[in-house]
Amino acid sequence: MKINVISSAKYADKDILRGSVPVVIDVLRATTVMITAFENGVRNIIPVLSPEEAFEIKNRLKHDVILGGERDAEIIPGFDLDNSPYSYTVEMIKDKTLVMTTTNGTSAIRAASSAGDVFIAAFLNARAVAEELNNEVKDEVSLVCSGTNGNYTLEDGLCAGYIIDILKMYHDVELTDFAHLIHSFYLTSKADVHEAVSKAKHYRVLKDKGFEEDLEFCFRMDESSIIPVFSEGVITKKQAKP
Amino acid sequence: MKINVISSAKYADKDILRGSVPVVIDVLRATTVMITAFENGVRNIIPVLSPEEAFEIKNRLKHDVILGGERDAEIIPGFDLDNSPYSYTVEMIKDKTLVMTTTNGTSAIRAASSAGDVFIAAFLNARAVAEELNNEVKDEVSLVCSGTNGNYTLEDGLCAGYIIDILKMYHDVELTDFAHLIHSFYLTSKADVHEAVSKAKHYRVLKDKGFEEDLEFCFRMDESSIIPVFSEGVITKKQAKP
Repeated sequence: MKINVISSAKYADKDILRGSVPVVIDVLRATTVMITAFENGVRNIIPVLSPEEAFEIKNRLKHDVILGGERDAEIIPGFDLDNSPYSYTVEMIKDKTLVMTTTNGTSAIRAASSAGDVFIAAFLNARAVAEELNNEVKDEVSLVCSGTNGNYTLEDGLCAGYIIDILKMYHDVELTDFAHLIHSFYLTSKADVHEAVSKAKHYRVLKDKGFEEDLEFCFRMDESSIIPVFSEGVITKKQAKP
Repeated sequence: MKINVISSAKYADKDILRGSVPVVIDVLRATTVMITAFENGVRNIIPVLSPEEAFEIKNRLKHDVILGGERDAEIIPGFDLDNSPYSYTVEMIKDKTLVMTTTNGTSAIRAASSAGDVFIAAFLNARAVAEELNNEVKDEVSLVCSGTNGNYTLEDGLCAGYIIDILKMYHDVELTDFAHLIHSFYLTSKADVHEAVSKAKHYRVLKDKGFEEDLEFCFRMDESSIIPVFSEGVITKKQAKP
């Protein structure tokens, strides 16, 4: 299995992803929120690029639609939920359609879909995703770090490195130089992931805004076996094989 | 001082480099060759994008022009020199104008020049470049890893990490997440740089082609105090301050 890593959503273009299975990672916080929403019973998730697109879908579907996401890490005016995983409770989202827009994660998912169905990953479900990739992918995987505003972020790279580490246990993997770099950083950081990302820009922005509980939550590892998959405009859950 | 690292020449665009001093690194082998050429007395170097552009300049300047570079790591038909630093002897290049085109390095230099004068670095002159940056740059440095065919390569990243490591000794530096990743990899690899890059794709390609001596040469550290600078279409040497 070949493994490539893309450093930010900005570079997840068709040419780079061609022929590979894309996996989108946005640890802080979009993909963590999505996995949490499925854990708490959301029916499906529609990732959109703008609040306007979200309002338009809500007006069209009318029932059982809830709007979530952020701009500048805060709730969008007129939306039901912000981008904290703690907001996505069973009471709020069970059996609902969640329409979601965030600054980086949702656009990364839409961009990566040029290559086909997109797996959605974060620390919460990293092992489940890696095991599913191990079962399903014959040729090449592209791990897309969403990043922030076009820039690489350490936390997404650490999660990508963790997924590579699991895949290496099953397969003879062929890593690109960038995948090798990402895996190496994971190995030197895994003893204390919080410490490793404490200098990361987006981590500090969220910490300064008072999101300590979210930060703690987003680095919980392997608590979910749910694998959200984006296909034909909608994210649904694919339960990992037992 | 802020430090950013660009993962490949492909991403060295004007928007990303704006306001920073660009430094281009192509350890294997273009920038190593350039530094060696200045050590051996070349007058100046004109980096061009194509063999045709090189022939056109030679026809125009007529005297004391020598053509060097590679495609697929081999000499270009009609050129005087290949892309091995060992080819750039005093006998061949002293007081000449070298017109050079390589697959990645020369295009990285041309791309980076959108931000202003470009420093040329490799392991050979890394410390001299870092010290010059320390003296000259007030605000931001962009270390551009040339990479190979649009992809990140470990050896350029290691050299960038080494330059960051030196700058950190002088300055309170502010690293982007990607610069932090690159520096961290350097720290875990510095005890044996050859071992660290032995899995790198471009390194293996050159090794398979029989360029072991070049590989050994390109990882020699700090043997030159020459700082080539690309300004207004020509690379000339800037001697480091004593």
